[in-house]
Amino acid sequence: MKSDKISEAVVRRLPIYLRYLSGLQRREVATVSSQELGQKLDLNPAQIRKDLAYFGDFGRKGIGYDVAYLIEKIRHILNLDQQINVVLIGAGNLGQALSNYNMYLKENLKIVAVFDAYGPKVGTLINTLKVQPMEELSATIKQHNIRIGIITVPEHEAQQVADKLVEAGIGAILNFAPIILKTPANVRVHAADFTTDMISLAYYLDNGKEDLDDVKQSSTEVDH
Amino acid sequence: MKSDKISEAVVRRLPIYLRYLSGLQRREVATVSSQELGQKLDLNPAQIRKDLAYFGDFGRKGIGYDVAYLIEKIRHILNLDQQINVVLIGAGNLGQALSNYNMYLKENLKIVAVFDAYGPKVGTLINTLKVQPMEELSATIKQHNIRIGIITVPEHEAQQVADKLVEAGIGAILNFAPIILKTPANVRVHAADFTTDMISLAYYLDNGKEDLDDVKQSSTEVDH
Repeated sequence: MKSDKISEAVVRRLPIYLRYLSGLQRREVATVSSQELGQKLDLNPAQIRKDLAYFGDFGRKGIGYDVAYLIEKIRHILNLDQQINVVLIGAGNLGQALSNYNMYLKENLKIVAVFDAYGPKVGTLINTLKVQPMEELSATIKQHNIRIGIITVPEHEAQQVADKLVEAGIGAILNFAPIILKTPANVRVHAADFTTDMISLAYYLDNGKEDLDDVKQSSTEVDH
Repeated sequence: MKSDKISEAVVRRLPIYLRYLSGLQRREVATVSSQELGQKLDLNPAQIRKDLAYFGDFGRKGIGYDVAYLIEKIRHILNLDQQINVVLIGAGNLGQALSNYNMYLKENLKIVAVFDAYGPKVGTLINTLKVQPMEELSATIKQHNIRIGIITVPEHEAQQVADKLVEAGIGAILNFAPIILKTPANVRVHAADFTTDMISLAYYLDNGKEDLDDVKQSSTEVDH
């Protein structure tokens, strides 16, 4: 199952399903229909059924999906049935915001180390983590089996940091710097550049009223 | 031209083209080919030609695109030939990081006001902006003709803040809170939820080597 190719659009919807399903589980709801998921997540129920069918045929007509089973399946597909250690490089405001956020993250993704190239920041605490100097990056990544790196350094430092992460054997990077990182094909990069998000929003300011049927939450968009 | 429906994927690539083209302009490069754009932005040149053809037929065979003209066109399509005022709600670490970032933004998008519901933060300075109390939100949005709102408040406050933004007549929202906001169809919402970005990255940790041809920078992905 894991070797099947799942489209990026589907992979990006899985965490959204997971979050909503986890909420249901906390409220002890046992089953959910694709209609309800569709309504709550602003997605087409047919799209949801198609997405979930990637992972086997769980849904039963008239009963819906078993919440606990679906959570287990999605977590497995997303590799979240194991703890994934994450390193954050760049202890500025954004880095600090992300580590705070990390504390609330219920999933098995955990920022276990924070680095900064800027001397005065090294040794300070971000939540419970002591900011480390860049010289220790490679050893720390290996020691803690860190698989994902988050880059929150300024634009001009980002490529160099990415190179160091790749060199140390990282598997995926979440990049907040506004540049396109060059990495080997086996290192997945997601760009979290909010200026692109914001600039593309501007497009819809005048177009909104003409394209009502196109208006929806971007992160839940179905395939074109 | 503006009434034509442009797909979200294309709209999201326009800021990426714009950023690269602006760099060329600073270096006084007059023309650029779709091949060069493709190589630098990790996109298929055919996809780039198709994207840019939405806006008229600028490219000339053997010469390429006129950089200045393309910048002007894209900025016009994105509504960036006018200043667009932005309000930020939530003066925590993330809000602060975004306002710092704002200072570097060369485009006509400008955070002109910052709000927070938490008393002790009201009146403090974030860069040059004094944090205002929520009671002043609606009046400030009208006074400064603010069109975009950025939400950086905690999850449980986000919907209430969105409602207030909508009530005050905002046209688009960039939402950093990890919930699906309910808004009228004419208010565009982009979710900038980095946990979704990070969780979906985890999927690729094991799959990366099997799907080499699928590995690319997510923000520059072409249409499926």
